Parts: sequence; structure tokens; C-alpha cells
Amino acid sequence: MTQPRFSRTEIVNTASIAAATETISKSHAIQQPALIVGTGLLGASIGLGLRAAGIDVLLTDPSPSAQAVAQDIGAGRALSPQDEPGTVIVAAPPDVTGSEVVKALQRWPNAIVIDIASVKHAIATQVAEAVTSGEVTAQDALRYLGTHPMAGRERSGPVAARGELFTAAPWVLCTTPETPQRVIDVASDVARLLGATIYHMTTLEHDAAVAQISHLPQIAASLLASRLQDTTVQALQLAGNGLRDTTRIAASDPSLWVQILTANASQILPELHGMKADLDRLIATLSEPYAPGARLDVAQLIDEGNRGQARIPGKHGGPAQSFAVVTVLVDDTPGAIVNALQAVADAGVNVEDLRMDHSSGYQVGMLEISVVPGHKKHLVAALTDLGWKVL
Amino acid sequence: MTQPRFSRTEIVNTASIAAATETISKSHAIQQPALIVGTGLLGASIGLGLRAAGIDVLLTDPSPSAQAVAQDIGAGRALSPQDEPGTVIVAAPPDVTGSEVVKALQRWPNAIVIDIASVKHAIATQVAEAVTSGEVTAQDALRYLGTHPMAGRERSGPVAARGELFTAAPWVLCTTPETPQRVIDVASDVARLLGATIYHMTTLEHDAAVAQISHLPQIAASLLASRLQDTTVQALQLAGNGLRDTTRIAASDPSLWVQILTANASQILPELHGMKADLDRLIATLSEPYAPGARLDVAQLIDEGNRGQARIPGKHGGPAQSFAVVTVLVDDTPGAIVNALQAVADAGVNVEDLRMDHSSGYQVGMLEISVVPGHKKHLVAALTDLGWKVL
Repeated sequence: MTQPRFSRTEIVNTASIAAATETISKSHAIQQPALIVGTGLLGASIGLGLRAAGIDVLLTDPSPSAQAVAQDIGAGRALSPQDEPGTVIVAAPPDVTGSEVVKALQRWPNAIVIDIASVKHAIATQVAEAVTSGEVTAQDALRYLGTHPMAGRERSGPVAARGELFTAAPWVLCTTPETPQRVIDVASDVARLLGATIYHMTTLEHDAAVAQISHLPQIAASLLASRLQDTTVQALQLAGNGLRDTTRIAASDPSLWVQILTANASQILPELHGMKADLDRLIATLSEPYAPGARLDVAQLIDEGNRGQARIPGKHGGPAQSFAVVTVLVDDTPGAIVNALQAVADAGVNVEDLRMDHSSGYQVGMLEISVVPGHKKHLVAALTDLGWKVL
Repeated sequence: MTQPRFSRTEIVNTASIAAATETISKSHAIQQPALIVGTGLLGASIGLGLRAAGIDVLLTDPSPSAQAVAQDIGAGRALSPQDEPGTVIVAAPPDVTGSEVVKALQRWPNAIVIDIASVKHAIATQVAEAVTSGEVTAQDALRYLGTHPMAGRERSGPVAARGELFTAAPWVLCTTPETPQRVIDVASDVARLLGATIYHMTTLEHDAAVAQISHLPQIAASLLASRLQDTTVQALQLAGNGLRDTTRIAASDPSLWVQILTANASQILPELHGMKADLDRLIATLSEPYAPGARLDVAQLIDEGNRGQARIPGKHGGPAQSFAVVTVLVDDTPGAIVNALQAVADAGVNVEDLRMDHSSGYQVGMLEISVVPGHKKHLVAALTDLGWKVL
């Protein structure tokens, strides 16, 4: 079997990575130096990314060790009393973000201040209250813009930071009609230099959106995984990908989620009430599963799930698309997956999605390759010809 | 950069696939011909697998077209009136499985009868009731053994059937102290010839297990996905892998799940009540998110999810293991993923898990490669040296 090889250079030069990460214009409106308040995973990653774009970055964190690690990895230099940042990026935990924003507006009267917390209305409210109480002027408050980069991973802390963390991630800017253009420009350029995709919405639109697409999934995963605390080991042996996928994010950090869920409680509650109504109905139905109408009730619940699931956009934010799945049996050695995917590449078929199916038992894996439906037949034939076991 | 190549032959010959699918002993206790009642995805896949093992397979299905497709793909030959099956495998929808088992016991007084429905106690009860009502004798009922292969995919129908569908899948046998050894032998040999891993448990143990590891995840995914029916398109643009993973199985077939959930209602209900209690508590807590104790309450819910999630076994049914994740930026061409994984193979590192991260925006993907934690540092260095962007 002959296998045309792809050289690394060709790959890197083919359009998209270059567009995403290498040919971004380095001209920008960011006022320097930029100060990052909070050097956890996100703050330190922003520092690394901005430094790579040539920005002078200052760092401050209440934890001296977190700040030292961030400096050591090259995310920026320590803030000193004589520094006068032109841009402040508050990357503190959500529950102290509001007060850090107000402090920054007070302390640096010329700086543009953005934050990156995952809830937005509560923080905007804190800034508005600071105006009411006279802590900052209304004019000062206009220098603030709330933003939210939808990145972040299971890992945490500056040691896990990467300048490329935000590449291709959505970054929401909660602009208002009053936000000055120069403030929007600075926030946009921070997101753009880090390779993110910018979306504009109001704080309430943002909070409602993340309640549905991020906070509710977290709650559902935690409620479900919580039931496994007393499951027998025997039962857990039967677990498949369905259970793994639905519970993966249940491994998230409790202290972060306490802050997020409490700060966004008002947007989350209507969703929880909706979920509770459906759950109550299901409990009533399954209490008399053979009563008239019971089976229709259950079918409706599953059908409504079908409809909601089908609305989730596909890869790269495009329209939802059903890919055809080709499952190839591979063994558990370093080269096996490569060889299978090389065969797919040789067949000229693009891999739209990829996952390993972890069945228990034998030391083999099912490599599930999603392809555009029209390519499936050709791919199955090509792989089968080469001797691969296609399920 | 030099890249040692793996030949396909070497890969196939390395132990595990061979052990799983190629060197299985063909000697067995299955009484022939074997009849498969129901030629959907599972029935037709069993037919293909048994035929590949040299078994004479008969097929019957109330749908002439489903039966014709199953015959055409080679899953077996049509049952004719003079046939006398020695083994009957009932692969009908769950809600007719019980009556099909009873019919088979009546019609073929020497046959061993197994079923493969995903609920087990209700079917065993139907067989016991048939003894009480005199439809079959107690002696006849001993020829029946309930089983459940934990395979099956989003696809359905005989056209999607594959003889390898059960490879490395768990296959539960609900043996009782009364089950004759020859019946256990036949059922075990069906599972073994198809490459599955055999587990023994009672019908109630099985039903409680699948309620927790399969039925409850389905319900949670459907309840969650159902909330997305009215989510704005703007909000859905922000969707990430967390939402996709937690809702993937919400795309399942309503008519199948009605049968499963109603038949296993008594085992599912306690789990739903537990979930409801947690949900009610969360709603109460988030209604006054800054009341004393509220934040501890939320932290406990997330922490309990952490604990449950951590109990799910790892790959191949081994103990739960945390892998280290190395994320590599790849572009969207056929060769990009192959090249990245070739570099991983060249580094001598085994891929324990693999997934694509679908962020919206740019035409690039994040290839998330899970490796044994001790290999991470070496792999990151090796990939970075070769010019890959490692996040």
C-alpha cells in the first residue's frame, strides 16, 4: 500500500491555522502598559498571548506564588507603584471581579478597564452601584467594558497557561449604546490579538445565554453524576460512552461554580423550574407507566430532547449537520490510530469529528470517524480494501 | 524530520485485535440451526456475527422488508415451516420480547431461548406468569435465559448491521441458581463468538444497574436538551463541547426509549426522586443565593457530582484513571490530524483517548490527546520541537 505523505510545512501553510494564529494584524488600539489583575489560568494565558503580540504586560495577584509563576512563564512583569497602566484586564475570580473593576477605575483614571468573568450583569450592576454611591463618577464608569472569553479547561492555575488558549474561542463583549468606541476598540483588539471570535450582546443576553448553554449543562451533569455515588462497582463496569459524555463536566471545580451559579441565579432559576416541571411530569408518568397517555408523555419528553439537541450548531459554529460515522477497530498501540487515520487521509476524506469508544474488556478501541455523509461509502470501501475492520 | 512508519500487518498482528476478534475458539455449545426473531440492527448484527463463526442462522421478522434486507446482507436464511431451531435468540423490541420468548418456548420444545432486550426483570416476570397461567411448563421456562448485550448505536435497522458490533462490549447474562448449565453454555457461547465480555447478574441487579448508568443519563440529557428548544440562535453560537457532550444522547429514538423507560420504571423512579430532591434543594438555594449556607449548599452539589464522576471506570473497564491532556492545534485538512498523531506515535507515546474540540469561528481544531500523566512532558516537548502548536 502506498501512502502519500503530508509534510508539516505544507500543513501549517494551508490557510486556516495561519489565518487564525499567524497573520493577525499586530496593529491595535491597546493602551500600554496593560495590567492583568489576577494571574490564574486565564489571566496568565492572556498575558502570554499579549506579550507574544508585543504588548508590555504588567501582572498583579494577591497570591505571591501565583504571580511568581506567571512571571516565570513569561506572562508579564510585576506591577510596581510607579507603573501607570493604560489598559486593565481584571481576570479575578467572579465574586471579586466587580470590586476589582471599581478599584481599577478609581486608581487609574485614564485606563480602560475590562473584565473577563463568566457572569456579566452582576458585575455591571456593581459598577453602576459604585456610581450611585459616588465611589466612581459616571464618566469613569464609561471606561469599563465587561467581556467573557468562552475558554478555560479542566486545568487551572498559571502553570497551565498558554497564549493560544483563546484561539478560535468565542469572546463576548457586552457593549452598550453608551460605550465609547475607543473602549470597544481596546477590548476588541485584546480578543483579536488572542485569536478569539468576537460576539456582541447585552449583559442580560449574555447571562441568559450562558445560563442555558453552560450553567444548566453543568447542573445537569452534577445532578446526574451525584447519583453515581452509591452505584455498585458491578453496575459501573457496564458504563459506556453515554455515561462518560453526560458526566464529564461534573468533574469541575466546586468553588468556581459556586461563584458562577450564585451570581447568575436569576437567569438560571427559570431554566431549573422548566427542568423541574418536566422531571415532575416524568415521575408522575413513570409512577403509572401503563396508564392511558403515559407512553405518549414519555415519548414527548424524548422527542423534545431530540428537537433541542438538533438546534446545537455544528463544527466551527456552522449550521447543525449530521455526519456519517465510520467505526474502525484499532488496537492499543501508538501507531494504530495514526495508521487508520493515514488510510482515511489517503482516501482523500476529511475527518469532521473523531472519538474513541471505550468499551470495557478487550484491549482494542473503536475509532469513530465522522465524515460528510456522501463520503462514507467510499471510505468504508477504501478501509475495508486495506484490511481494516470497519464496524 | 524522520518518521518511522508502522506497517498495517504489524499492527493487526499485535496481540489485542487478534485476541478479540481473530483467535476466538470456534468450538461452541450452540444448538443449530439458530433462529433470530427480529432482524433490526441488533438481530441482524448477531446473525452476521454467528454466520461468520460458521453457525447456521435462520431469520424471522414481522416486517418482510426488514427480513429481506437482513437476508440480503448475509445475516441468515428465512425460517421455513419445516425448520426446527435448536437455539432461539429473541431480538424483538422490548415491549414484545416477553411474548415472543413465551411463543418460542411453546413452539420449539427442545430449543434454548435467549433474549437481548435492555430490560430484564419485566421479561422474566412475563415468562413466570406464563408458567402460572399454564401457557408453558416450569420445565419449559428453564430453557429461557435473559441476556443484554450493551451495544447499539445511534443508527438502526438491519442495513446498519455489522457482525463486529458486539466486539469488546459488555454482555450481561441474568443467570439464576436454577438455570441449567447447558443453557448458560449456549448463551455464553453466543456472546463469546461475537467478541463480547460476559458479566453475570440477577435481573434486578441488571435493571438497577442500567437504570443508573444508562437510563438516567438518557433522561438527564433529554431534560437538558429539551431546554434548548427556545434558546436563541445567538446563545447557541456560544455552545462548546460541554453542551455537546451532555446532550449527545438526547438524539436517541423516542419509540425505543418509551419501551425501555416504562418497562424499567420501578428501578428508575428512586433515581428520579433522588435527582428531584437535589434539584428542589438547588432551586431553593438559588432563590436566595446569598443567604447563610447557600454557597455551601451549591458547593456540596458540585462536590457530590465530582465524587460520582470520579467513580466511573476508565478505558477497558480498568480503574478510573486521570489522563493528562495535550491539546494540539490542527487545521481542517485530511492530513493534519494524521500528521499530529504520527508525531505522537514517533514520540513513542500511546493515545489513551482522543477528541476534537469544536470551537466556533476559525477553521482549526483542537486535537485533545489524553496520555498517561508521566508521558505528558515528553510529548509536549517532542511536539513543540516539531513545530506543532501545543495549547
